[in-house]
Amino acid sequence: MTAGELIKRKRDGGSLREDELRWLVNGYVRGSIPDYQMSAFLMACYFRGMNEEETLTFTKSMLYSGDIVDLSEIPGIKVDKHSTGGVGDKVSLILGPVVAACGVPVPMITGRGLGHTGGTLDKLESIPGFRTDLTIDDYKRVIKEIGLVMVGQTNQLVPADKKMYALRDVTATVDCVPLIAGSIMSKKLAEGIDALVLDVKTGRGAFMRTSQQAVELARTLVKIGNGFGKETIAFITDMDQPLGTTIGNWLEVVESVECLRGTRGRGDHSADLMAVTHVLAGAMLMLGRKVRTIAEGVERSKCAVENGTAYQKLLQLVEAQGGSLFAVENIENYSLPRHTFEVKASEGGYVGVIDPAEVGLVSIRLGGGRATMDDVIDPKAGIVLRKKVGDSVEAGDVLAVLHTDREEIIESARGRVQQAFAIHRKPPKHRPLILSYVDRGGVKTWM
Amino acid sequence: MTAGELIKRKRDGGSLREDELRWLVNGYVRGSIPDYQMSAFLMACYFRGMNEEETLTFTKSMLYSGDIVDLSEIPGIKVDKHSTGGVGDKVSLILGPVVAACGVPVPMITGRGLGHTGGTLDKLESIPGFRTDLTIDDYKRVIKEIGLVMVGQTNQLVPADKKMYALRDVTATVDCVPLIAGSIMSKKLAEGIDALVLDVKTGRGAFMRTSQQAVELARTLVKIGNGFGKETIAFITDMDQPLGTTIGNWLEVVESVECLRGTRGRGDHSADLMAVTHVLAGAMLMLGRKVRTIAEGVERSKCAVENGTAYQKLLQLVEAQGGSLFAVENIENYSLPRHTFEVKASEGGYVGVIDPAEVGLVSIRLGGGRATMDDVIDPKAGIVLRKKVGDSVEAGDVLAVLHTDREEIIESARGRVQQAFAIHRKPPKHRPLILSYVDRGGVKTWM
Repeated sequence: MTAGELIKRKRDGGSLREDELRWLVNGYVRGSIPDYQMSAFLMACYFRGMNEEETLTFTKSMLYSGDIVDLSEIPGIKVDKHSTGGVGDKVSLILGPVVAACGVPVPMITGRGLGHTGGTLDKLESIPGFRTDLTIDDYKRVIKEIGLVMVGQTNQLVPADKKMYALRDVTATVDCVPLIAGSIMSKKLAEGIDALVLDVKTGRGAFMRTSQQAVELARTLVKIGNGFGKETIAFITDMDQPLGTTIGNWLEVVESVECLRGTRGRGDHSADLMAVTHVLAGAMLMLGRKVRTIAEGVERSKCAVENGTAYQKLLQLVEAQGGSLFAVENIENYSLPRHTFEVKASEGGYVGVIDPAEVGLVSIRLGGGRATMDDVIDPKAGIVLRKKVGDSVEAGDVLAVLHTDREEIIESARGRVQQAFAIHRKPPKHRPLILSYVDRGGVKTWM
Repeated sequence: MTAGELIKRKRDGGSLREDELRWLVNGYVRGSIPDYQMSAFLMACYFRGMNEEETLTFTKSMLYSGDIVDLSEIPGIKVDKHSTGGVGDKVSLILGPVVAACGVPVPMITGRGLGHTGGTLDKLESIPGFRTDLTIDDYKRVIKEIGLVMVGQTNQLVPADKKMYALRDVTATVDCVPLIAGSIMSKKLAEGIDALVLDVKTGRGAFMRTSQQAVELARTLVKIGNGFGKETIAFITDMDQPLGTTIGNWLEVVESVECLRGTRGRGDHSADLMAVTHVLAGAMLMLGRKVRTIAEGVERSKCAVENGTAYQKLLQLVEAQGGSLFAVENIENYSLPRHTFEVKASEGGYVGVIDPAEVGLVSIRLGGGRATMDDVIDPKAGIVLRKKVGDSVEAGDVLAVLHTDREEIIESARGRVQQAFAIHRKPPKHRPLILSYVDRGGVKTWM
């Protein structure tokens, strides 16, 4: 068996056996298979795909390239949630505390911003002192103590994915369903979960632009999860405008805290954020056997926000992971960025579109994300939306506020955000926020 | 511009501009674009191809990655020939001396065995003392003195191809028409030629299995050649059985010498070899303006063999490049290998097929070629065919003789060669040796 032969077989539309895929992945991790063969293989996979068995085997090979956390000593059904990435997507920050507050342990290993999207890890790290680089032992200790933990990827878990992801990023082999699915699921399976809820984003601001692509990915993810004996549900949700009102790490923490306190998220511009959060939390509570249906879980989730237990859980998390309770408890006044700049509407009408990819990219330029892995993030930089899709606006109305210290790029940023808002004469058609969901029974429409 | 963006554009079916391709190729040679990005790009090219302009630009970028030999001080139209690779294909060894003997200078930079095929360089090096690693100055001196030179690739010429070829070989990106065409033509154009004849092999023993693929490659090669102002003709020739009677480096030199002496090649098992040689030589003589038609060139080529001038030219070449004249002049008796083993027919009938790829691979196993670049070739190892397609055989007749010192593999080699001969009840249908040719006017059938 040579790597060249396996690349050729995949290139010619054939499929690889379990031992072959394992040999390829392990050899890549150990360095006996070089980057240039792996990238050619990945590009062949881009064109030829993988069948169901290969995808499962590929995921397994990735998973077994490192350690798998054993959480069996922790009572209860451990459930995590993963999003394929959106703009303004701070759902994890709210949903983790909510679900844990309802008694379902949430072991969450999460990632950094990617492309135009933000990452939960970067958001958590904008809380002063918050540590995401826990050891596996500390990770287990925290979830044992408070039923919730949110950390970054470690080198012991799925080293194959870490190495392969960096390669895919620079070889145009990211957007390929089996590779995406293998990457996501190997990381989630390594956490020690018993069940998983997935949020597959679709639309202008998502990696899966069409709902057809999103459904394909969702089906693949659910098949892998169930193939490993972990009950998995995937929701297809809309990413055709940023979620909630904020884009940028600290700004998103602030919005999340306000939503958890119940001071935002009902009938305001954070309502879409909370609608998605409650549905995902509801599904997690169902998988965690705390409720019988998702709808029942949604009610339980709302309750946990209203009665303050979810907010208390967040405070426990911040404390357990070394974050500043003072900053979170005094969040409204805690060190706002020095400079804000308004973006105003040049004409009146209705907001038809807010291009999330463009807003996400501008937020990165303002300092809110990394253009290269070496960039340092300005945690306070970002964008606050004052208008959302469907709102009526008049010329001169403030559409958004930019938070940044990079005054030199403010004019171009302002222009780009103004362009990202498409102002139409008529109100836009209603787009459902949750399009469908996939479980072991297949694709189902959402009410 | 990033390499990732260019890979993505090609992956998505777009085309690259001249500056982009040049940036990619030059960056690769200089090391600023790593192997893993180039291999992903090459795999994307495998699936998406290149348009005519890209292919020309790609070739140009490869060509200009190194030096181009200037042979303008040498009088006459310099014409070379290149074969896409076959089994038993020792045409260059005969045709070079023939064409040079007729007054057309032949500057030939040639390669090593590849896959199941042999390489002219390995054959030349089986002549004791023959040096193929001449400097560019020595290369120019030899062609100036005797009108013929045959050397290996140097590091100064087309470094991009050397590096890229090694990469393609291990990433299943060899068999892709624009990449093959760019690789062949950049090397040939760097030699300092004025015109070129190509032998595009098709059939079981060729890289282009179907004549349709072969014609596609031939058209691409001719377009590139003419695009650079070098008159180019490509023949599509049959490689459905080995050419001539020998496979293996020294064995092929022996057959070539015998053909040049006129003691073989007419009405015997080397007749197919000489038929191809004369046609290609005829075309070279036409391009070199020594004759008006290919047919006239064929007659001139036969003449050069009959009157001994071609053989004398070979002796001049051997002497000029340090080879042993004694070995060539006493070739029948010069150190035969210690062990020969007969392969016999198990049944009677007619030879319908001799699978050239299988025969080529067995020859490598016998010591006649390299399985990896580090292997040392046994120059005397190889196979002599005693029967060719169309011959009648009886059970027990000798089909072939294996020359090797590797006695330990003789049983498996014998079995494989016996299997490579398909014995049929009826005589096989006649297959034309030269299927068609392509010049600037398009594809033409051959008489």
